[in-house]
Amino acid sequence: MTITPIKCKAAVAWEAGKPLTIEEVEVAPPKKGEVRIKLIASGVCHTDAFTLSGEDPEGIFPTILGHEGGGIVESVGEGVTSVQVGDHVIPLYTPECGECKFCQSGKTNLCQKIRETQGKGVMPDGTTRFSIDGKPIYHYMGTSTFSEYTVLPEISVAKVNPKAPLKEVCLLGCGVTTGMGAVTNTAKVEKGSTVAVFGLGGIGLSAVIGAVQAGAERIIGIDVNDSKFALAKKLGATDCVNPQEHDRPIQEVIVEMTDGGVDYSFECIGNVKVMRAALECCHKGWGESVIIGVAGADQEICTRPFQLVTGRVWRGTAFGGVKGRSELPGFVERYLAGEFSLNDFITHTMPLEDINEAFELMHQGRSIRSVVHFDRH
Amino acid sequence: MTITPIKCKAAVAWEAGKPLTIEEVEVAPPKKGEVRIKLIASGVCHTDAFTLSGEDPEGIFPTILGHEGGGIVESVGEGVTSVQVGDHVIPLYTPECGECKFCQSGKTNLCQKIRETQGKGVMPDGTTRFSIDGKPIYHYMGTSTFSEYTVLPEISVAKVNPKAPLKEVCLLGCGVTTGMGAVTNTAKVEKGSTVAVFGLGGIGLSAVIGAVQAGAERIIGIDVNDSKFALAKKLGATDCVNPQEHDRPIQEVIVEMTDGGVDYSFECIGNVKVMRAALECCHKGWGESVIIGVAGADQEICTRPFQLVTGRVWRGTAFGGVKGRSELPGFVERYLAGEFSLNDFITHTMPLEDINEAFELMHQGRSIRSVVHFDRH
Repeated sequence: MTITPIKCKAAVAWEAGKPLTIEEVEVAPPKKGEVRIKLIASGVCHTDAFTLSGEDPEGIFPTILGHEGGGIVESVGEGVTSVQVGDHVIPLYTPECGECKFCQSGKTNLCQKIRETQGKGVMPDGTTRFSIDGKPIYHYMGTSTFSEYTVLPEISVAKVNPKAPLKEVCLLGCGVTTGMGAVTNTAKVEKGSTVAVFGLGGIGLSAVIGAVQAGAERIIGIDVNDSKFALAKKLGATDCVNPQEHDRPIQEVIVEMTDGGVDYSFECIGNVKVMRAALECCHKGWGESVIIGVAGADQEICTRPFQLVTGRVWRGTAFGGVKGRSELPGFVERYLAGEFSLNDFITHTMPLEDINEAFELMHQGRSIRSVVHFDRH
Repeated sequence: MTITPIKCKAAVAWEAGKPLTIEEVEVAPPKKGEVRIKLIASGVCHTDAFTLSGEDPEGIFPTILGHEGGGIVESVGEGVTSVQVGDHVIPLYTPECGECKFCQSGKTNLCQKIRETQGKGVMPDGTTRFSIDGKPIYHYMGTSTFSEYTVLPEISVAKVNPKAPLKEVCLLGCGVTTGMGAVTNTAKVEKGSTVAVFGLGGIGLSAVIGAVQAGAERIIGIDVNDSKFALAKKLGATDCVNPQEHDRPIQEVIVEMTDGGVDYSFECIGNVKVMRAALECCHKGWGESVIIGVAGADQEICTRPFQLVTGRVWRGTAFGGVKGRSELPGFVERYLAGEFSLNDFITHTMPLEDINEAFELMHQGRSIRSVVHFDRH
């Protein structure tokens, strides 16, 4: 059977700083080692907004954004064996080839097999599968989930249990896995720990859930927006603190609240000053701070080296240290087993046509996650 | 038997920036939980020079410096049970009480039991054991080994095998243990690793030894002083690099030499710019950098958070993460078993009277370690 191009709708980012426009795009058949999937849903994440803003030095236009999706394999290219037509999959912006130095190290999830082409907005063969009137449209993070159909390398999809509703588990394609994984995979929080979570958006709330699952005894949520506290507490935060209500640095407040500092802290904002506070509120001797948020390109983190010499550890994480193909299916199973809920995160849903509204809601701080449903019009 | 005060010689630091002067001091008997020891030898370390320079914000004068000693217990105070007269001991500036939150954590060697009084230059009861004509002279780092006799809390001495020559194993009281421990205890370097050591003084060379013992495959020594390279290579460095011979940042040079960066790096200087280079020469995904050197009080380390988000880890260490009372005796045994040599470190020895010469040699970069021998005059 010959696989033919598909014409479908996609939200195209023509240039930085402009709203997306809905266009009819042509999605070429998957080439060797690639799969084409039909998207069911896609979350809209801060990283999409970051790139659209023009601040992302790697941003390439025109492109189709989106990296937090859920879909069904529509066709597969030559040599694809690990998934087949009809499989439910979550696209992975961090692939897992299982063969490169990074995958083989056992120390990181940062597979580098297709890093270079992915960063350039193309498939591993150096070309794009998206076009409009024959002119190429670039891929984004190797996923481009703001399209009814997208093409990905086989190593960039995680096959998941088809019983899971893709309109919810699409969130495991980025934010929720990042927050939970930072706690369980990167920090390896132990039972009884004290944890601080800076920033109570989607990532921060997921870190709270991760801390609950890890058995943390005390979970302190920190945000300048009090309206975030109710949900944080519902999900398991034991204390919530607004730095604006204190006239001294928030790290001092947290150190005092916790008799010396927290065992683990997580920065879920992307603000370098908050990253410093997150490190410095850690307990002398063993406190570890994990940077999850992504800061602007030229920004730097600073602290006195004494903070580290006296036993604090500064780490970072991408996609929560989670290996997508081997570990994400397990996250879906735990979700199906009722270990955590995703529904709380989804404050808004909309058809693809209204996707710019999702960016608006995010900028206004009114949404946790907006999810695009491709079956609505 | 009544324990009486001892009059003996000590090198006194009367004020910052001035040479030490040899004085007759009175050393009071050990109080409850304290021991008085007769020093056999003491290394002279950069930290002594740092405090003497006046840059150490915690520096208190007049004081008796020195923290890298070896001695024999001369008398013990009330209630002391873990050591007795005649025991060979190494003074510990990082004590180990076994009872405090830190000792009990299992995560750090930074016992805090007597931190506050130690930082103030006094014994745990708030007074000093040193005096001249009735005027108190302060303790330093809880050790004050530049004296023929000194008093320490029982929790601040490690009892070691009396077969070990104290004139050599005194170096385990600071520099050598710090460098070796940073590799084995803090970084936990694995067999086959690639390691970079920045600064090839006593600490750096000890880190090289630690890396050899850990089975590192490649050990890169970095120093601006080529004359350090011969000994570094003798001790096990596989490559030596002088940053001044390259016209680009040393981190780039190391990353290129190692096909992506080192698995572990150690900063053994105390220079915040070098600390950054040490982090940034680490391999993406898993490289860990350990700060050992002590920077000036107001200085800060900086980097782009992207360095951490892509998997590098920034740590620090004090006394190599080694718990003095429980682990230092093992270091001495390994030394006795011939696993490593200390002799290479000792470039100069001298009687206490000539101690200022040791500071001179250090400032001129001509010594690795000078060791004061108390039986020479």
